[in-house]
Amino acid sequence: MFAPVPRDHTYCFYRKTDKFGVQSDDTKICVVMVGLPARGKSLIAGKALRYLHWVGIPAQIFNVGTYRRMDTPHPAAGFFDPSNPEGERMRRAAVQAARSDLLKWFKEGRGVVAFLDATNSTKARRAWIHKCCHDKGIETLFVESTCDSEEIIMNNILEVKTTSPDYRGQDPEVAAQDFRNRIRNYEKIYETIDESEKSYTYVKLINVGSTVVINQIKDYISSRLVYYIQNLHIRPRSIWLSRHGESEFNLGSKIGGDSDLSVRGEAYARALPGLLKQSGIPAGAKLIIWTSTLKRTIQTARHLAAESGYEKLEWKALDELDSGVCDGLTYEEIAERYPQDFAARDEDKYNYRYRGGESYRDVVIRLEPIIMELERSENVIIVTHQAVLRCIYAYFHNMSQEQSPWMEVPLHTLIKLTPHAYGTEEQRFKANIPAVSTWRSKGSSAKHQASTDS
Amino acid sequence: MFAPVPRDHTYCFYRKTDKFGVQSDDTKICVVMVGLPARGKSLIAGKALRYLHWVGIPAQIFNVGTYRRMDTPHPAAGFFDPSNPEGERMRRAAVQAARSDLLKWFKEGRGVVAFLDATNSTKARRAWIHKCCHDKGIETLFVESTCDSEEIIMNNILEVKTTSPDYRGQDPEVAAQDFRNRIRNYEKIYETIDESEKSYTYVKLINVGSTVVINQIKDYISSRLVYYIQNLHIRPRSIWLSRHGESEFNLGSKIGGDSDLSVRGEAYARALPGLLKQSGIPAGAKLIIWTSTLKRTIQTARHLAAESGYEKLEWKALDELDSGVCDGLTYEEIAERYPQDFAARDEDKYNYRYRGGESYRDVVIRLEPIIMELERSENVIIVTHQAVLRCIYAYFHNMSQEQSPWMEVPLHTLIKLTPHAYGTEEQRFKANIPAVSTWRSKGSSAKHQASTDS
Repeated sequence: MFAPVPRDHTYCFYRKTDKFGVQSDDTKICVVMVGLPARGKSLIAGKALRYLHWVGIPAQIFNVGTYRRMDTPHPAAGFFDPSNPEGERMRRAAVQAARSDLLKWFKEGRGVVAFLDATNSTKARRAWIHKCCHDKGIETLFVESTCDSEEIIMNNILEVKTTSPDYRGQDPEVAAQDFRNRIRNYEKIYETIDESEKSYTYVKLINVGSTVVINQIKDYISSRLVYYIQNLHIRPRSIWLSRHGESEFNLGSKIGGDSDLSVRGEAYARALPGLLKQSGIPAGAKLIIWTSTLKRTIQTARHLAAESGYEKLEWKALDELDSGVCDGLTYEEIAERYPQDFAARDEDKYNYRYRGGESYRDVVIRLEPIIMELERSENVIIVTHQAVLRCIYAYFHNMSQEQSPWMEVPLHTLIKLTPHAYGTEEQRFKANIPAVSTWRSKGSSAKHQASTDS
Repeated sequence: MFAPVPRDHTYCFYRKTDKFGVQSDDTKICVVMVGLPARGKSLIAGKALRYLHWVGIPAQIFNVGTYRRMDTPHPAAGFFDPSNPEGERMRRAAVQAARSDLLKWFKEGRGVVAFLDATNSTKARRAWIHKCCHDKGIETLFVESTCDSEEIIMNNILEVKTTSPDYRGQDPEVAAQDFRNRIRNYEKIYETIDESEKSYTYVKLINVGSTVVINQIKDYISSRLVYYIQNLHIRPRSIWLSRHGESEFNLGSKIGGDSDLSVRGEAYARALPGLLKQSGIPAGAKLIIWTSTLKRTIQTARHLAAESGYEKLEWKALDELDSGVCDGLTYEEIAERYPQDFAARDEDKYNYRYRGGESYRDVVIRLEPIIMELERSENVIIVTHQAVLRCIYAYFHNMSQEQSPWMEVPLHTLIKLTPHAYGTEEQRFKANIPAVSTWRSKGSSAKHQASTDS
C-alpha cells in the first residue's frame, strides 16, 4: 500500500533515480557570501539553509567569525584594520580553517550546498575561493548584499550589537560605536562585484532585493536558491496558522474527506476574528486570508473574511495530505485493513505515500510555491489542515523530517509566528472551545488520544 | 461530485474568491518591451503571452510595427532615421494608436497584462508611457533586452529577414542589409535603462539572460512573469512527449490507478528507444528522461534509460489527473453512478474537479514548475499520462482551455516538438503497435471509441 522512497535518493523538487537528475550526481555548490558587516549576510545564509533543509537538500554554514572567535572572542575594531598585521594574520587563519572544514565536508559527501559566511570583501579573496573550489569540482555561487539605506544599516547594527557574541556583556552604546568603526575598516578595502568578475555565477542584492542582479546561473538548485533569495524581504510582519475548526469527520475520527464543520467547529469559526484581534495586529496592517479549497477551512475563515474585509484566497496547494484509498477511514480501520503498511508508515512517516495518495514529502513539494509566496508577502493568516500546517511550521522552525510529521497541532488554537533576524517567535492562542484530539502518537491507533498539552 | 470553479474568478496560481487575491482586484500591468531591433523582444513577449494564457491570465500584445505597417507596409531603413521628420511623424502616430488601443483594452476590462511591443528606445518615450499608464492606474513593467553578442544578433537578423512582413517578397540579402541599416538608425538615439530610471519596475536581460537585472518588482504576477522570462534560453532543442504504453487498466477501460503495462504496452516500451532514434536526435546531444512516479510511465521509459544511459527523473507533478472517487472506474460506470456530474464535467471539463480529485486547472497549477524547468532545460523526453500530456501540449501550442481537455493523444505515439522563434514545429512518430483508444468525445461514455486518426 505504501510506496517507500529511499531517503538518500530524494530531493523535494523531484525524486532522483539514477542520479541527482537535473543536477549531476556529484553536485557541490559553495555559496560565498559577500558584503560589508551589517548587510544581512548571515540572515540570508540562515534563511537559505533553512529552505534547503526543508526541501531535503543537505547544506551547512561555515561562518568565518565563529572560527575567528576561537582565538579572538571579543576583538576591538582595530583588529579589523587592514593595516594591523596581527589582526590580518589571525583573520586569514580563520578563513583558512573555515575553508578546509568546508572542503572536508564536501569530500566526505556530507552535503550539496555549503555557505561560506564572511565578508569576502576583495576580488583577490574571491578569486582565491573560486580557485580552491574549482580545483575540487565545486561550483561557486557568490551572493553579495549591498546597501546604501542608512536606516537598514542602522537596524542591522542595532541587531548585531544586541545579539553578536563579539559584544556579549558590553555596553550597547560602546558596542555600536565599535561596530561602526569595524565597518569603516572593512570599507577601506571593500570591492563590490563588477564587470571584471562576470565569469562567476553571482547574485547581487541591492538594498534588500529592491534591485537584484543575477549572472550566469546554470544549475537547477542555484536557480531555485536565487529565486528564493530574491523573494526575501525584511519588513516586519507576522504569519498566523490555524487548523480548520472541528469537522464532522473529526467527530467520527475519520481522516480526509470534505465534510462540514461540527457545531463546535462553527463556534471556533465565529471565535476566530476575536482570537486574531487578541493576538495583536499592528494598527492599520493589511492582512490576507489563505485557505485550502476544502469546505472546512473555507467555513472556518468565513466570519473572519466577512467581518474584517480582508482579502481571501483559496489555494489547492493547501489542501490536506491526500490519504488515497484510506480517505474516509479511521486509524483503527486502517490498522485493521492494512496492518503491515500502517506499521511501515509509522516507521518512516515522512516518506511513506498512501496508495493513490501522498506522503509528507509530496506535500512539501506542492507547498514550495506557497513558501515562496509567503516570503514575498507581509501579514498572512493561513487556515489549513494538520499535515499541511506541520509542513509549514517545520519550515519556520527548521524541524527535522523525522520530527515534523509527529508534531501535535491542536484544533481551535491560533499560532502566531513572527520572524526575526535570528529565529521565529511563536505565540499560541487557545479559543477555549472543546474539540476532539486528532493527534496519534507513533504505534498507536487509538480513536482519540489525550492531547499532551490539554 | 464535481465542484465548479467560476471561470472568470480564477487564475492558475490560486483560486480567487473576493478579489484577484494577492493582486488587487483591478490589477493592470503594461509590459513595455525595450530594445534595439533584433534583440528578441517579440519572441520574449510572445512566449510570455503564451505562458500567461496557459495559467489563465488574460493578456494581449500590442505591436507598434503592426500599426505602422497599416500606413507603411515596406519601409526602407531611411524611414527609421531620427532626422527623417516624415518617418518620425508616422512612427509616432503608430505608437499613439497602439497606446490608445491598449488603454481602451484595459478600460473595457478585457485583461490583466498588455505588452507594448516596440523599441521604446529613449528615456523620454519610456517616461511618456509610464505617465500614460500611471494616470490610468496601470502598473508598468519594462523588459529590456540588450545584446553584445554578434552571433545572437546575426541569427536574429537572419530570422527577421525571412519572417518579417516588412521584407515580404524581397531579396534576402538586400533585406538583411536594409535591416542592419535600420538598426544603425535606432542606435543613434538608443538609451539603455540606467540609474536614472531606478524608480521604475524593470528587468534587463543581457545576452539572452546570461545576466539579469531585476528592479523594484512588487506584485505577484510580475514576480512570476520575471521568473519565467529569466529562465528562457534560445539554444536549439527538442521536447519529446509520449504517453505510457498501454496499461492493464487501459485494457479494462478503467481510469486512474497504478497498473502495470499490458503485453502490448511492454512492446511499446521496447520500441521506444528505436522510435526516439528515428525521430532524430542531434549527434552528441544530451537528453534527460522525465517520467511520473506511476509504474506505467516508469516501465515505459525503462528500456530507454537502460539502453541510452540518459539521466532519468521521476516527478510527482507528472502523475495523472487524480480522478478521486472515480479512480478505477470505467466511463460507463461513472456515467451510471454519477449521471449529473458526468454531464457537468462534459459541460466544462477544464474546470470541473472530481470529488477528492483534480480538475485540468489543478493539473496546470502543479505543472507550472515543470514548465519553468522545461524552459530552462534543453532536450527532454517526457513519458506521462493523457491529461498531463494535454496540458503540456496546450502550453506549447497555445491551445484554449475549452479545447485542450478534449484533445486526442493516441497511445504508442511519440510527439516531437521543436520550438522556433515564431511557433513550435511538431512531428508524430507511430510505433505501429496496436493499443486501445482511451479517447472519449464529449457526451459519449463508449467503452472504446475509434480514434479519429486511426
